[in-house]
Amino acid sequence: DKPLSIIAGPCAMESREHALEMASALKEITSKLGIGLVYKSSFDKANRTSANSARGIGLELALPIFADVKESLGIPVLTDVHTAEQCAPVAEVVDVLQIPAFLCRQTDLLIAAAETGAVVNVKKGQFLAPWDMKNVVEKVRGAGNPNVMVTERGASFGYNTLVSDMRALPELAKTGAPVIFDATHSVQQPGGQGATSGGQREFVPVLARAAVSVGVAGVFMETHQDPDSAPSDGPNMVHLKDMPALLERLQAFDSLAKAA
Amino acid sequence: DKPLSIIAGPCAMESREHALEMASALKEITSKLGIGLVYKSSFDKANRTSANSARGIGLELALPIFADVKESLGIPVLTDVHTAEQCAPVAEVVDVLQIPAFLCRQTDLLIAAAETGAVVNVKKGQFLAPWDMKNVVEKVRGAGNPNVMVTERGASFGYNTLVSDMRALPELAKTGAPVIFDATHSVQQPGGQGATSGGQREFVPVLARAAVSVGVAGVFMETHQDPDSAPSDGPNMVHLKDMPALLERLQAFDSLAKAA
Amino acid sequence: DKPLSIIAGPCAMESREHALEMASALKEITSKLGIGLVYKSSFDKANRTSANSARGIGLELALPIFADVKESLGIPVLTDVHTAEQCAPVAEVVDVLQIPAFLCRQTDLLIAAAETGAVVNVKKGQFLAPWDMKNVVEKVRGAGNPNVMVTERGASFGYNTLVSDMRALPELAKTGAPVIFDATHSVQQPGGQGATSGGQREFVPVLARAAVSVGVAGVFMETHQDPDSAPSDGPNMVHLKDMPALLERLQAFDSLAKAA
Amino acid sequence: DKPLSIIAGPCAMESREHALEMASALKEITSKLGIGLVYKSSFDKANRTSANSARGIGLELALPIFADVKESLGIPVLTDVHTAEQCAPVAEVVDVLQIPAFLCRQTDLLIAAAETGAVVNVKKGQFLAPWDMKNVVEKVRGAGNPNVMVTERGASFGYNTLVSDMRALPELAKTGAPVIFDATHSVQQPGGQGATSGGQREFVPVLARAAVSVGVAGVFMETHQDPDSAPSDGPNMVHLKDMPALLERLQAFDSLAKAA
Repeated sequence: DKPLSIIAGPCAMESREHALEMASALKEITSKLGIGLVYKSSFDKANRTSANSARGIGLELALPIFADVKESLGIPVLTDVHTAEQCAPVAEVVDVLQIPAFLCRQTDLLIAAAETGAVVNVKKGQFLAPWDMKNVVEKVRGAGNPNVMVTERGASFGYNTLVSDMRALPELAKTGAPVIFDATHSVQQPGGQGATSGGQREFVPVLARAAVSVGVAGVFMETHQDPDSAPSDGPNMVHLKDMPALLERLQAFDSLAKAA
Repeated sequence: DKPLSIIAGPCAMESREHALEMASALKEITSKLGIGLVYKSSFDKANRTSANSARGIGLELALPIFADVKESLGIPVLTDVHTAEQCAPVAEVVDVLQIPAFLCRQTDLLIAAAETGAVVNVKKGQFLAPWDMKNVVEKVRGAGNPNVMVTERGASFGYNTLVSDMRALPELAKTGAPVIFDATHSVQQPGGQGATSGGQREFVPVLARAAVSVGVAGVFMETHQDPDSAPSDGPNMVHLKDMPALLERLQAFDSLAKAA
Repeated sequence: DKPLSIIAGPCAMESREHALEMASALKEITSKLGIGLVYKSSFDKANRTSANSARGIGLELALPIFADVKESLGIPVLTDVHTAEQCAPVAEVVDVLQIPAFLCRQTDLLIAAAETGAVVNVKKGQFLAPWDMKNVVEKVRGAGNPNVMVTERGASFGYNTLVSDMRALPELAKTGAPVIFDATHSVQQPGGQGATSGGQREFVPVLARAAVSVGVAGVFMETHQDPDSAPSDGPNMVHLKDMPALLERLQAFDSLAKAA
Repeated sequence: DKPLSIIAGPCAMESREHALEMASALKEITSKLGIGLVYKSSFDKANRTSANSARGIGLELALPIFADVKESLGIPVLTDVHTAEQCAPVAEVVDVLQIPAFLCRQTDLLIAAAETGAVVNVKKGQFLAPWDMKNVVEKVRGAGNPNVMVTERGASFGYNTLVSDMRALPELAKTGAPVIFDATHSVQQPGGQGATSGGQREFVPVLARAAVSVGVAGVFMETHQDPDSAPSDGPNMVHLKDMPALLERLQAFDSLAKAA
């Protein structure tokens, strides 16, 4: 069992300057702790609750910024893809293609992502049982790509609420794929604010700690220097300034969880 | 309140011959009863549980068959679209573009469907509250297309199970869009057979009757002359031979529900 | 299939005068329609959300009032029992002993109720699957009492919300016991107002209509001449003045559902 | 924050000999580790799925055995009470009165338990939100007893399944009462074997570890030297032989969770 890594960054890419600042801050934090870092940001919020919400800067502007982050800081980057066509161009720059939860059963998207040879991180749909991800993982592997990860991000629990079933983590591990716990979207309250999704930032450390103690390869956590003014997922992103203490704490639980 | 219509047909398009036979049989049944009919079939099962399941005959083969059904039988046709690119070509032939439940928040797909000017039928995601569909409907209308319908098809209820909340029907009606009840997928047991989804065909008439009595514009029901050998959704499709009695029954409940 | 009966009355017994007024009004309404009536009221709200909420007038004051209602109006009466000790004295007066949903698996209570020989109406726990009621019914029958009814009143669906699964009605019917649909508590929002439970009165007719159309022996509906000032369950009780129209409507759906 | 304690023992009391053996074995294990122990056993399984399942040895036989365990081993004991009448006699011997989850809103039972002055441990109903326990705790405190604990044991999640929401633990802590995580019943599959409840013993350490890492006062874990032949809860009890390693592991997570 390798030590915990994190997938972190602001939900949406805002600008080259912002991306480099955030990535650089995260690199500094994680280097000090000896935690692996994958930098995450989205170039398009393709399934916003409302059409009036911001979409993002788009693929063309984002790819050179991802390239800059990689080159200048030497850290791998992850972004989510929404169509089969996006996979190849994105994979020319980006290390990990992430399949959004709503799209986790779209066969063409999974196969197109798989065929790039990049690592594919599939988020488990809010509507799926953990054991259902076996078939999803097989879609990627069946396309010739063994580098697939799976991410738990909560299951539908009544209306506008998700629940994180910690039993899902060992169940997902049975696929043989590294298991990530998405502590940001697990505390989302989908559609919970009418035209936007709400969130419960205070539970991010709670659920992250539980998941790390059960045992995961990594934690996915969105962060921002000013979440309340971020273009998306503000209510559930962690303040950048809180990341060092949170990560140090998670690292301690991870060491304990992975001790023989 | 207009009388009940149905959206019906085999889950997957199998061949020109099969489509014409099924559509013709359904036309005969519904004409006798005076029930409006939209013929439904899928050209692609884009999100099968497992990559090993059959996908469908594809867009190119399917469109001329839909055209034949329309022309020879004079009935409108509906099919589901999975990418923004499919919308325009499909809308050249097909009357109603259906947005699959998993994709009901994909903004680009909704807008591309809307921009064709065809009727757009959006299935409510298993992960959405009924009131969340307000934003979805606005995405279609905001793209200039007032012809949007919404379909209830069950909400996630624990693992591998859906529940149909009848309160969702009046709640969905608040969007102002016609409300369809999908009696086929509401009895689906997602992923419930390991590599395929299960279903509870015996509950189709139960839930359809409940929904019609609460009040809906239409019922969506997949049907097949031999469901158990159908390429998909066999466990929850209704036998074609059972359709006349079932529809007659639903019609009676509909008349009562819509009586002043 | 016998025609629909109703179990109706104010949630809590308030006074002799109020009970006789309500029972008399309900008798008049149901007699006109030819609907069977069982008068319901509770002498004790034994599981209020908060200890600060009103409890009720108690067993000793209530039994003579139930006796009066029976004698003066000639209608059967129902009340809920909370302990094994209450069963025998209550059954001396009351026709139907009702087991509250939270207590539906308390073996001693079920057996004590059964042993009175009175009809026993068991509400399905919010935490039970419909097929789990088979064992509950067997507890009553095993104690020598074949006169057992089962009542659907919603299943837990996330927090502070219930959902009514219409599939539960035919599933419960497999027990062989008459199936009642409780339209009042199915729209309850347990604990949803902090120190009291909320409710959605507007959905009572919706769910009642759905249930009757699926097919039930009876509907349970609490009613009050002034629900908003009632000591309990105000938010989900039906206005007495709305009962005639609602019952007439349900009766029409019931006739249709039970037509050969 | 005091170090972790456990509430442990066989689900049902079987005999004096068995109780003393189990309690003595548990005392030895916990003493070595320096973990506080409350010995748990039930004298009556009052809400078995089926009436055909074993009930237990009863109050009269059980109380002297509890007294023996206390006296000979010097450890506090806990048992569950099902009626208000049982509270006083049980509290003469037993240190902690436990209110079963199904009964957690029965006001009279809560008050009778409170009035004994004994510690009262209330299990959160499977049908309650964590914040709903505030009113439950107030019922006990309002009766003059500040010594109340609350126990999380899973929330209804679809049919025959529970899910453990780790957010419930800090939410329950807001009541000011010590929070216990019941790792045995959280992995129960209620009614999941037809006439008995199933369980997933393999997830006991998973959920216990998650809960301890989030932070709890104690863990409730049923154990048996031969769970598969135990009269109840066999599928979810931990093998006694596995307890030392499991507790040592939990203790390490607890120390970390409670480190400043």
